[in-house]
Amino acid sequence: MAKEGVEKAEETEHMIEKDGGKDQESVLTAGDTKEMRAVVLAGFGGLNKLRVTKKAMPEPLEGEVKIRVKACGLNFLDLMVRQGNIDNPPKTPLVPGFECSGIVEALGENTKGFEIGDRVMAFVNYNAWAEVVCTPLEFVYKIPDGMTFPEAAAFSMNFVAAYMMLFEVANLREGMSVLVHSAGGGMGQAVAQLCSTVPNVTVFGTASPFKHEAIKDSVTHLFDRNVDYVPEVKKISPEGVDIVLDCLCGENTGKGLGLLKPLGTYILYGSSNMVTGETKSFFSLAKSWWQVEKVNPIKLYDENKVIAGFSLLNLLFKQGRSSLVKIVVDKLISLYNARKIKPLVDSLWALEEVKEAMQRIHDRGNIGKLILDVEKSPTPLMANDSTETSEAGEEEEEEEDHEGDTDKERMPFIQ
Amino acid sequence: MAKEGVEKAEETEHMIEKDGGKDQESVLTAGDTKEMRAVVLAGFGGLNKLRVTKKAMPEPLEGEVKIRVKACGLNFLDLMVRQGNIDNPPKTPLVPGFECSGIVEALGENTKGFEIGDRVMAFVNYNAWAEVVCTPLEFVYKIPDGMTFPEAAAFSMNFVAAYMMLFEVANLREGMSVLVHSAGGGMGQAVAQLCSTVPNVTVFGTASPFKHEAIKDSVTHLFDRNVDYVPEVKKISPEGVDIVLDCLCGENTGKGLGLLKPLGTYILYGSSNMVTGETKSFFSLAKSWWQVEKVNPIKLYDENKVIAGFSLLNLLFKQGRSSLVKIVVDKLISLYNARKIKPLVDSLWALEEVKEAMQRIHDRGNIGKLILDVEKSPTPLMANDSTETSEAGEEEEEEEDHEGDTDKERMPFIQ
Repeated sequence: MAKEGVEKAEETEHMIEKDGGKDQESVLTAGDTKEMRAVVLAGFGGLNKLRVTKKAMPEPLEGEVKIRVKACGLNFLDLMVRQGNIDNPPKTPLVPGFECSGIVEALGENTKGFEIGDRVMAFVNYNAWAEVVCTPLEFVYKIPDGMTFPEAAAFSMNFVAAYMMLFEVANLREGMSVLVHSAGGGMGQAVAQLCSTVPNVTVFGTASPFKHEAIKDSVTHLFDRNVDYVPEVKKISPEGVDIVLDCLCGENTGKGLGLLKPLGTYILYGSSNMVTGETKSFFSLAKSWWQVEKVNPIKLYDENKVIAGFSLLNLLFKQGRSSLVKIVVDKLISLYNARKIKPLVDSLWALEEVKEAMQRIHDRGNIGKLILDVEKSPTPLMANDSTETSEAGEEEEEEEDHEGDTDKERMPFIQ
Repeated sequence: MAKEGVEKAEETEHMIEKDGGKDQESVLTAGDTKEMRAVVLAGFGGLNKLRVTKKAMPEPLEGEVKIRVKACGLNFLDLMVRQGNIDNPPKTPLVPGFECSGIVEALGENTKGFEIGDRVMAFVNYNAWAEVVCTPLEFVYKIPDGMTFPEAAAFSMNFVAAYMMLFEVANLREGMSVLVHSAGGGMGQAVAQLCSTVPNVTVFGTASPFKHEAIKDSVTHLFDRNVDYVPEVKKISPEGVDIVLDCLCGENTGKGLGLLKPLGTYILYGSSNMVTGETKSFFSLAKSWWQVEKVNPIKLYDENKVIAGFSLLNLLFKQGRSSLVKIVVDKLISLYNARKIKPLVDSLWALEEVKEAMQRIHDRGNIGKLILDVEKSPTPLMANDSTETSEAGEEEEEEEDHEGDTDKERMPFIQ
């Protein structure tokens, strides 16, 4: 990864005031070309740890592509990173963000396959939420002509993960059924769309009731996320479902496994509940890890069941499977070009509006993906509309109190 | 299942003496048509619990097919049944055996799709090792013209299980790698042959050294089953393998999981080690169940791994998936007709030779499948050649001493 000089960067913090966004925007973009704007997480915690800061312009190392970023994807995972609630968290300050789209601005030595000016989307191992990023070419993909930059930023993480879970891990085929939580989110919509590419697949989804009208065409059976979906699913399909996609949260692991048909596959793919208001402190977050019960293989044998874990970022950045992901991206682009799938963008936010965007995903207000639009100016109206209280209030204080405890509590069982 | 009157059957036990097989055979086959010969397990334990007995002729209930049996498959599972080392063991006396081939002799009411005289193979929920069996038509399949009865009896269990594990559970595709234990056995050979139907699949197999020459063409890399295969596999494929097929035995669970590539699948499919001389008593068998460690789903998430259990008999007889199995049998018959696969029969044994046959599978002497040939007369030479001592000797006594303890020890963790 490029030396971005996080520590050396001038820490001129441009905290966005609700009524001051526009002025600061102009100040920031007037800087010389050796600097760029980026969202910086000063330390793990609440929304107040996020700033937009000038940082040194990164330059591509050998094999890297330098991208002038147009749009970045915002995921639940970014909220977990903000809280430090991930395995082996990196040091702060850091620039969050794992995916972006933009235009190739420069190439490092021995970097073949791209030309300056190419429209691309990319995975980045942090540092995506900035005006410019550098990332190894194995994580960069050309985007098709018809795809906008926000669509491309909404595409890579969710569709690649959904595709790999459904088709590489679980072997989705005609006539099967799938249960997905947060069906209205970026991942849920990617899952629903990919299911629709296979004949006669039944999708069971949970979502907040206010989203049901908007997403009802993409999901066969929608349940209120606040009610117990198990009896609802069993009413429709007494035998259960073939594939359960579950974000990592203790409460649902046993329920989801219990809902599987014989030969069914249960996939843990990451956490959303753990960053919501349901968990009031780091201490209770630690407890929710405990609730992911260990699985007895003898029981899997007896019941003919499959349990899998899926982490796209680990696959890319720890396990060196970028060539496999490249094949999947190519397949997905074919599906996009054939108009079988299309990323659903919920809303666009300026870098300076990252807090409001995070609050929206935290509050499960989004239908589809939240995008940071790097060229967008903060919208005072949107900023005034913020519901920042619930997350940045007392809860956050409590989190910080327990920060020390948490590491001790959590580490032993995440190995 | 048909009322076979196990308890009511005349318990005229025709124990086969090593030099008296032929005479008894003639006595038995001279019985009237209301009786048939069957292998009966009088109680759980060693080889001396097995007898060939006259039993009441079964008649088909509604939906059942009555089959004049020609050949039966003998599996490791039958040794476990003999020892009572299975979940919820049935009551003894019982007739063992889960698969056979033969000719349709009669049909129950409302039994469509077969005609008297059809050559068939079938799954049976016990009772296969007899001259006549009745089983629901959903478990009966016509066999292709070119397939012999012994081949058909060697076909259903191993090839269906191997196919479903490789293609339904694990999604075997071009270029992948598979590790299978007991590569020289009926299951191992089925796995190897099915892997050869997919381009560029690497098969790692373990087997006793004396089998290597015979099976070397079916397996890419063969290892001595007595040496640690992990470093051997890693020497050839440092990243590990895509699919590990493992019989249920504590020692190998962690090893097998550790050998998986990211996105790899580990499948527990049943037990072989648990019925061998490696476990000297029921008490130590119980301990081997303990060694199947529980799996932390967070670890699966972190490592992008899949763990599955597969039990064909549960799928058929507990979970009602016969229609799925039927589809698989049809695919396998197509592969057989295209000469892509062919069951490998190790040897044929008379019903009266079941002890010798079991001893051979216990001693891992077989290359391919052991078949009970119902029309075969016991071969005095083979009977004299028996190596019955190791299993029917002291070890067996010890087993019986611990029988009571075992149930208590074992039941809590097989649920």
